[in-house]
Amino acid sequence: MATAEANSIEARLAALGLNLPIAAAPAANYLPFTISGSTLYVAGQLPFEDGKLAVVGAVGKAVSVEEAEHAARLCALNILAQAKAALDGDLERIVRCLKLGGFVNAPAGFTDHPRIINGASDLMVAVLGDAGRHARFAVGASSLPMNVAVEIDAVFEIR
Amino acid sequence: MATAEANSIEARLAALGLNLPIAAAPAANYLPFTISGSTLYVAGQLPFEDGKLAVVGAVGKAVSVEEAEHAARLCALNILAQAKAALDGDLERIVRCLKLGGFVNAPAGFTDHPRIINGASDLMVAVLGDAGRHARFAVGASSLPMNVAVEIDAVFEIR
Amino acid sequence: MATAEANSIEARLAALGLNLPIAAAPAANYLPFTISGSTLYVAGQLPFEDGKLAVVGAVGKAVSVEEAEHAARLCALNILAQAKAALDGDLERIVRCLKLGGFVNAPAGFTDHPRIINGASDLMVAVLGDAGRHARFAVGASSLPMNVAVEIDAVFEIR
Repeated sequence: MATAEANSIEARLAALGLNLPIAAAPAANYLPFTISGSTLYVAGQLPFEDGKLAVVGAVGKAVSVEEAEHAARLCALNILAQAKAALDGDLERIVRCLKLGGFVNAPAGFTDHPRIINGASDLMVAVLGDAGRHARFAVGASSLPMNVAVEIDAVFEIR
Repeated sequence: MATAEANSIEARLAALGLNLPIAAAPAANYLPFTISGSTLYVAGQLPFEDGKLAVVGAVGKAVSVEEAEHAARLCALNILAQAKAALDGDLERIVRCLKLGGFVNAPAGFTDHPRIINGASDLMVAVLGDAGRHARFAVGASSLPMNVAVEIDAVFEIR
Repeated sequence: MATAEANSIEARLAALGLNLPIAAAPAANYLPFTISGSTLYVAGQLPFEDGKLAVVGAVGKAVSVEEAEHAARLCALNILAQAKAALDGDLERIVRCLKLGGFVNAPAGFTDHPRIINGASDLMVAVLGDAGRHARFAVGASSLPMNVAVEIDAVFEIR
């Protein structure tokens, strides 16, 4: 039951050829996640891959839309890694991804934020199935920490 | 009771001469709203009017403060349309608007975000009465999807 | 018990030489906070000090990183002032700070948002102890209301 369910998410990750990264330590004096009742808040995640920042620069300048979409996917993987840490390793305790907050490092006049944040939305649905479908916003940030292309935070319902 | 209350919101909408738009489909692979217990999350809404984007461009450049205030009002109407869809057509199930997150497409040095997001805040109170009074943030975004002037998301308490 | 706990936060504020500001009235038609069950939402706070805006301008231009860090600290003090007002003067009813949303008025290419928002995170932990440790995001805003350097909103769990 719980095991079978747990297998299904871990099995999907494997089938997608995905390994969750090591949950990154916060860059400052805060927590990577907090829990209140059945609500899990995951702090804004950056596109870390293999322990280092993978996509740096503003979209439409140093970074292409495709690269930024990949950055969003990496942010989503880091969100899932934090969720797994928050849930003692058991991603099956996720009832639903409630919301993603997507910030794209983009200059004035850029218009393609939805496509970029899709990199995260699609990953969330691919891994969690229907439980991965969420509300979200996608907006432009004038700049982001360490000049990353994308930062995304998340809210989950958990059991 | 429930009917009388329901009438009051729908009656206010009518008295204000407002028709809620058709709840817009998301521009990508996500949901327009999610519900967790008594909390309703509405995804970031754009200033759609009669099915098309109504206010496009950066405030202080292509778009005036008055036009952006109207855009915020349109975002709020779309938020209410999504809430109505989430609540099976019964806006009376809204206990309270808890929070609006307001993003204004505005260049460096712009300072009038509160007045613009007031377009949404005032609408929410006009339609929902005291239940429409909410916490909020109002910030500048370097750019927004499809170059809209304003994007706003929302959290409601529902019954 | 409740008194002793209450004393501990108030005692920490005193030991830090901090006075909470007067909870500022919203700049527009919204509330400084809303409560839903055990969740308290505090509206985006600006760096008010002694009733006036203390740190105005974009970081990296008119405002230094150190000044912006101070602005973030002021935002956190204003958040606590609003929380105190929301909780009938009893900060001990805070179970935990769940999340801070940090917006830094910063130009393209700026990278030091985490250090700036630390001004708020450190203050929250200094005052609330472990209950002050939170998830957060830190992003760049193209502009902010009244040209402030920092705006921060918050979510708390309360009892």
